[in-house]
Amino acid sequence: MNYKLMLRMLGRTLQVEALCLLLPLLVALWYHEDPRPFLYTIVPVALLGFALARIPSRDAFFSRESFTVVGLIWLAFSLFGALPFWFSGEFQSFADCLFEIVSGFTTSGGTVLADIEALPRGILFWRSFASWIGGMGVLLFTLAFLPRVGGRTQVLVHAEVPGPIFSKLVPKTVQSSQILYIMYFVLTGAEILAFLLAGLPLYDAVVTTFACVCTGGFSVMNLSIGAYSLPACEVIAIVFMLLGSLNFALFFLALTGRAKQVIKSDELQFFLLIVAGASLLIFWNILPLYDTAGHALRDAVFQVTSVISTSGFSTTDYNLWPPFAQTILVLLMFVGGCSGSTAGSIKCGRILLLLRSSTRSLLRLSHPRAVRVVKLDGKVVDEETLRTVSSFFLCFFALLGVGCLVVSLDGYSLTTSFTAALGCLSNVGPGLDLVGPMGNFGLLSGFNKVFLSLLMLIGRLEIFPILLLFLPSTWRRS
Amino acid sequence: MNYKLMLRMLGRTLQVEALCLLLPLLVALWYHEDPRPFLYTIVPVALLGFALARIPSRDAFFSRESFTVVGLIWLAFSLFGALPFWFSGEFQSFADCLFEIVSGFTTSGGTVLADIEALPRGILFWRSFASWIGGMGVLLFTLAFLPRVGGRTQVLVHAEVPGPIFSKLVPKTVQSSQILYIMYFVLTGAEILAFLLAGLPLYDAVVTTFACVCTGGFSVMNLSIGAYSLPACEVIAIVFMLLGSLNFALFFLALTGRAKQVIKSDELQFFLLIVAGASLLIFWNILPLYDTAGHALRDAVFQVTSVISTSGFSTTDYNLWPPFAQTILVLLMFVGGCSGSTAGSIKCGRILLLLRSSTRSLLRLSHPRAVRVVKLDGKVVDEETLRTVSSFFLCFFALLGVGCLVVSLDGYSLTTSFTAALGCLSNVGPGLDLVGPMGNFGLLSGFNKVFLSLLMLIGRLEIFPILLLFLPSTWRRS
Repeated sequence: MNYKLMLRMLGRTLQVEALCLLLPLLVALWYHEDPRPFLYTIVPVALLGFALARIPSRDAFFSRESFTVVGLIWLAFSLFGALPFWFSGEFQSFADCLFEIVSGFTTSGGTVLADIEALPRGILFWRSFASWIGGMGVLLFTLAFLPRVGGRTQVLVHAEVPGPIFSKLVPKTVQSSQILYIMYFVLTGAEILAFLLAGLPLYDAVVTTFACVCTGGFSVMNLSIGAYSLPACEVIAIVFMLLGSLNFALFFLALTGRAKQVIKSDELQFFLLIVAGASLLIFWNILPLYDTAGHALRDAVFQVTSVISTSGFSTTDYNLWPPFAQTILVLLMFVGGCSGSTAGSIKCGRILLLLRSSTRSLLRLSHPRAVRVVKLDGKVVDEETLRTVSSFFLCFFALLGVGCLVVSLDGYSLTTSFTAALGCLSNVGPGLDLVGPMGNFGLLSGFNKVFLSLLMLIGRLEIFPILLLFLPSTWRRS
Repeated sequence: MNYKLMLRMLGRTLQVEALCLLLPLLVALWYHEDPRPFLYTIVPVALLGFALARIPSRDAFFSRESFTVVGLIWLAFSLFGALPFWFSGEFQSFADCLFEIVSGFTTSGGTVLADIEALPRGILFWRSFASWIGGMGVLLFTLAFLPRVGGRTQVLVHAEVPGPIFSKLVPKTVQSSQILYIMYFVLTGAEILAFLLAGLPLYDAVVTTFACVCTGGFSVMNLSIGAYSLPACEVIAIVFMLLGSLNFALFFLALTGRAKQVIKSDELQFFLLIVAGASLLIFWNILPLYDTAGHALRDAVFQVTSVISTSGFSTTDYNLWPPFAQTILVLLMFVGGCSGSTAGSIKCGRILLLLRSSTRSLLRLSHPRAVRVVKLDGKVVDEETLRTVSSFFLCFFALLGVGCLVVSLDGYSLTTSFTAALGCLSNVGPGLDLVGPMGNFGLLSGFNKVFLSLLMLIGRLEIFPILLLFLPSTWRRS
């Protein structure tokens, strides 16, 4: 292990974090709020960052180092990012602060706060801004960082990102990440503008956009986006949550005149089919509860989009919906958006591959001699990728099982502990029952808040990197 | 498709069913109960059986025919087996009758009956006897029938039965099935004797044994085995449920002096480890609710064994246990016993293979150049088997998701619809909440009773055969 290089990389990212913290500091100053929570964090983080970044090191770097450093960077970012919350005195424990910031960075959007509106605007800005940063970090992680570190990790990215891969669309990785940044900035700007036009105040438009474009789900209102009672805002959020769930490489294809390739994307078609099907089923199921069909349809589409994009916003208390609609939402928590997006969970590409390889297994039983391959977008998917996807699927369910069990120690209902664990692992955020749209994670024990923070990180980093940190062989000298 | 041969085989099995029905008829006569429900069934079933069995046919038989005929035989057995319940007038609808008999044949043990004790003894005898027949059918299905039909189904059996395979232990399949019958009969006799010695009346000893040795779970008492309040009975049930969860090939190995091989079985060790671990965790969790540690331990071990063996007996209302203990039971519903046993669900062998192949995927990421194989009992498992196991895992969860969704249409709690679907697919039977140990499936709609019957059959036949019935390519001329 090249520990020196790992520390140097950690140093650089801490410098970035210190820089990022300047923005909420300015917001706090603008609203005449106490700037000390940010000052107390920025100074040590910046100093530590500069000290670590000066460590001399060789540039040799292999795949296991890349996983380790990704895991460590996210952990460090979260620990230091929690400090402003801690210094603000608005949170009951450091576990609460950690949960909240991890929920931000991982774009989960579950909260420990019962009365969000009571918090200073600077603190709430940092909370939403953190999820926006996290969204960018995820795009970088799946599309730009991993291929750069070389070695066989290319295989991982391949396995992780079935469908068009960004780094293959443009020759240089640095260029890829620049294009990604630009698209992310453009989406952000467009959504802020749309919210302003719809009538939101500037502050609300900015923080809601930060949490929406990254499919995060934090709101500065206790009633989430439903608090604004503006149908236009809900429609804008639906559009940008959907966009945020798509493979960013598809945008690039569309912008460079390859729209035909976009429309033909198997994963995109599958994703849109699920969104449409789930929305219609829920619409049919909740219609009797509503006065107008339009309102029922809007709520159905909003909630389906919110959950499948793993955002976790809400416009209504779906805890009160019939069990059928709730079950659909829970199933959507397993699905998630497309690969190469900021959405979490298993993702449509993987599910499609799993379904196709299972159909192949079935057909092999009845027609043993036929040779079959699994295809995606017309191309043959290699067996190693299928194996990795299968392993991902198993690990997801194994972690979910362990998650349920640990959370159940707090003694709340099975639905609460199941959807709390699922909400965190899938990065959706809220679940049902006590952790539903009108509830929060604040009632859980400190131990479970830290545990669920870990689960959010594991889910966010596509499971394997964090699991590797726990394998002894990762730390052994080779 | 060789339809004529399929019909002839169906005819033979219907003859067997008519023969089996003579036993409950005798019981009904012995207790001076109405024999007509059985007579009305036996006569047409026997006639149809004789008619079909006389159809002349070629003997050519391929793998897809074997799957189709297995599916059809179980369906026909269930439809005709439900007739005595229907003619008895004790059930509210044919859907109830169907659910009850399928629950028997698949050794699930979930019931639609609220007051079991009110039913005639002949009818209850048929119910338990059906699960005993079903257990034998399962043993035959996984160990003797499939290899005999030839073709590549050997591959399936291999994939289905990681660990020692019966048909490989003795050279001839006919001989294998005879040994299996004998072992099944010996276990049955031993358990009846044990129950009699513990103080149960003969009728109760026999029917409880029928439902226990096959890991079924039907009881003739409303309070299940707990009704007898005999600790000795509970211990006997624990022992035989455990034995019923083991690979029957291991008994043969042990009896023929190869005990060393038995002890070294990976799957056996894994199974016992889970039973011990889960029992201890539940014991620790429920201890405060009990007066004596002994009673808590007995209830913990009983419930763990009952669920992991997919029996579904109960000695206590675990709906009242803390959520942590309940979560363990739900997780155990996914596990099931060992391959080559009468237990259902995913089974320990498959879970072990999935865990090992996922660990391999993880290690490959950090050490990309190392070549690794997955082993079981020291032998390399081929990649085709691993693929089939992965597909099984995906299909299990996909069916569970669909199952939850469909059951949730009835509008009961998420826990009810989730554990109802899981209980049926895994062949455990009862779940939690309304379908818990003191509840029953009677409250569900007729549609859902038929749907859950199908889910029990799918789970019982290791998913693939019934799914194949729904694939158009199975019915196409090749």
